[in-house]
Amino acid sequence: MPVFDNLWSELAPIGRHAATGGYRRFAWTSEDAVLREWFASHAAARGLDLTLDRAGNQWAWWGDPDAAVAAGDPGVVIGSHLDSVPDGGAFDGPLGVVSAFAAVDALRADGFTPARPVGVVNFGDEEGARFGVACAGSRIICGALAGERARGLRDGAGVTMAEAMQHSGFAPSSIGPDAETLARIGTFVELHVEQGRALVDLDAPVGLASSIWPHGRWRLDLLGEANHAGTTRLVDRRDPMLNLAAVIQAARSAAERYGAVATVGKVRVEPNGVNAIASAVTAWLDARGPHEDDVRRIAEVVAAAGGVAAIEESFTGDTGFDAPLRDRLSGALGSQLPVLATGAGHDAGILASAGIPTAMLFVRNPTGVSHSPAEYAELDDCHAGVAALTGAVRELAS
Amino acid sequence: MPVFDNLWSELAPIGRHAATGGYRRFAWTSEDAVLREWFASHAAARGLDLTLDRAGNQWAWWGDPDAAVAAGDPGVVIGSHLDSVPDGGAFDGPLGVVSAFAAVDALRADGFTPARPVGVVNFGDEEGARFGVACAGSRIICGALAGERARGLRDGAGVTMAEAMQHSGFAPSSIGPDAETLARIGTFVELHVEQGRALVDLDAPVGLASSIWPHGRWRLDLLGEANHAGTTRLVDRRDPMLNLAAVIQAARSAAERYGAVATVGKVRVEPNGVNAIASAVTAWLDARGPHEDDVRRIAEVVAAAGGVAAIEESFTGDTGFDAPLRDRLSGALGSQLPVLATGAGHDAGILASAGIPTAMLFVRNPTGVSHSPAEYAELDDCHAGVAALTGAVRELAS
Repeated sequence: MPVFDNLWSELAPIGRHAATGGYRRFAWTSEDAVLREWFASHAAARGLDLTLDRAGNQWAWWGDPDAAVAAGDPGVVIGSHLDSVPDGGAFDGPLGVVSAFAAVDALRADGFTPARPVGVVNFGDEEGARFGVACAGSRIICGALAGERARGLRDGAGVTMAEAMQHSGFAPSSIGPDAETLARIGTFVELHVEQGRALVDLDAPVGLASSIWPHGRWRLDLLGEANHAGTTRLVDRRDPMLNLAAVIQAARSAAERYGAVATVGKVRVEPNGVNAIASAVTAWLDARGPHEDDVRRIAEVVAAAGGVAAIEESFTGDTGFDAPLRDRLSGALGSQLPVLATGAGHDAGILASAGIPTAMLFVRNPTGVSHSPAEYAELDDCHAGVAALTGAVRELAS
Repeated sequence: MPVFDNLWSELAPIGRHAATGGYRRFAWTSEDAVLREWFASHAAARGLDLTLDRAGNQWAWWGDPDAAVAAGDPGVVIGSHLDSVPDGGAFDGPLGVVSAFAAVDALRADGFTPARPVGVVNFGDEEGARFGVACAGSRIICGALAGERARGLRDGAGVTMAEAMQHSGFAPSSIGPDAETLARIGTFVELHVEQGRALVDLDAPVGLASSIWPHGRWRLDLLGEANHAGTTRLVDRRDPMLNLAAVIQAARSAAERYGAVATVGKVRVEPNGVNAIASAVTAWLDARGPHEDDVRRIAEVVAAAGGVAAIEESFTGDTGFDAPLRDRLSGALGSQLPVLATGAGHDAGILASAGIPTAMLFVRNPTGVSHSPAEYAELDDCHAGVAALTGAVRELAS
């Protein structure tokens, strides 16, 4: 499958960190700009019409999406995102975008003429690695993240999203809900590498998503008092690192209790000096599980262990994907396609919550590892993913 | 005391962080260069001869130190350091340097002619905030930190000390033990703000040091496996944040057990993403206490709690200051001068360990807070410190 393989190898060096082998592709950075140019050039090479929506997400259309809206028969959109977590893998996101372009090419090579427009999308800032809110691009256009709040989000260096957008040549004043863009999406199918090992156990290269677990992110501001590490008696200390230790352990034990997952993966220590008692520690909690109430309870328990209240940065309830759409795709693609729930959030989940008929295809991950340089999928399985996505578009756009 | 007050106000803005109000004066940075220029200009204004030693420490001599060495009657050195911990206070270090210049001026104003040379020193990189080794400047010239190891130390951005020196115009190839510089120091007296509240309890503005507790710094490399925070089952995780939590708690409980202090004040989390299980956490342990064996045992216990071995970055045994010198100063300055032990390391301790007769004067700290923007001393107490230091030089250089 030379189309897929060529596109894949073009992306391989962009934003790859030499020392770790992981990807650092963060929203509205120079790496992000290179990825956006790559997307635009492949849209142009295929004669697809490129548009930006009110969050800066990129859409490449085969056919006229607005004419289809006027006719009451909006298009079929496929795609995913190109950004990464810090030192992330090559597959999470880009696999869906590359597979989407490859599917368009496969349909054209077969002489397929779509009965409705087909769009390829690159959602921006899916991982939230820079500004802390996952799926920021899809949330903004769906109204799930207010423009005002998005503009004011700050990265670790204190740069706001508005400033970062401006710096990249995108006017932040326009960001907000985008009904026009959403109206063009009759159905959305996101292909994604699996982030677990269910397909390995089922011996299947490709599966369909049933739902996404409820998922929240919270910030815990643990306050202490800066002081000298050598001369301050233990009883005189207010050391927020002790609160951090309690938070980390509470996250694990609460997750065990509720059959969920909870992670403290990011911390910021001030002033972070070897011989200084920390004045403040900020910890971020990521919690997901089958039941929304339990996930919220985990955040409360963990914050209480740190002696503070949890500040919610994002929360997404249980997201069930469109069952009739899933059944239709399952029938078209082969009825033995396994159906999986997942703990990972996706732009597809945001669109599904906004009432758009949405499905997800997962490609087998032999180790289950994701958000890591070791993330991997076999090329044969990626090709099987493209074939499934091609079949899905053929079914939905006929 | 206008000399002290003027010098003090000149230093106030250098390296001060607007948001925190704390100082960020790290070795071989542009802030450090400004501080060195300040030192050189005040040496020049007083007609003192400026020399750099083989670690880049600055010495300003009143009189000919080498003639005094040849005559078997080496000089009296006073001074301290100008660098800071991250977001440190104004007093830790600079108080000793400013007081030294003020003491020289006071002696000259009195028409005092020293019987042996008087030197003012600015030791570089006392805090070790950038390269992780405290008292690097004095350790290097005393042979307690090998030149080769010093050159290879890296800051958080991966820059080596050699590269940082080169960038600042100091040739790193020459760094190493400096017997010639050490031979010039007949006695060394370091004035320093107290980093505790002993003088408050004793109602005394100035005190003398008895000894410095044994003090070690260790690095703990806690290894995990990067993975997705939403999709990796708890049993499949190798999350080094849990090891960090154990390390933080073990440090506190071991310090309590041994009547010592132990602090985890600095950590580095990779990749430090909200939705990524950390792949690696590095934690630094600072431990000090009355007994050397106990301090080493704390490091072992804490590292074992993290499932790793502790990597020693520095260790300094118990440092008793020269008792006859202390008695002599106590007699000259007033016999009721209190005598204190301290948990803080100082360049004076490094010189004392190298066999140089050394004393320390402490200036009262009303809150005991240090290594913090809130670090403070009353101006009257600072003036009392200058008077004591002036008296000490008068005694030792007569």
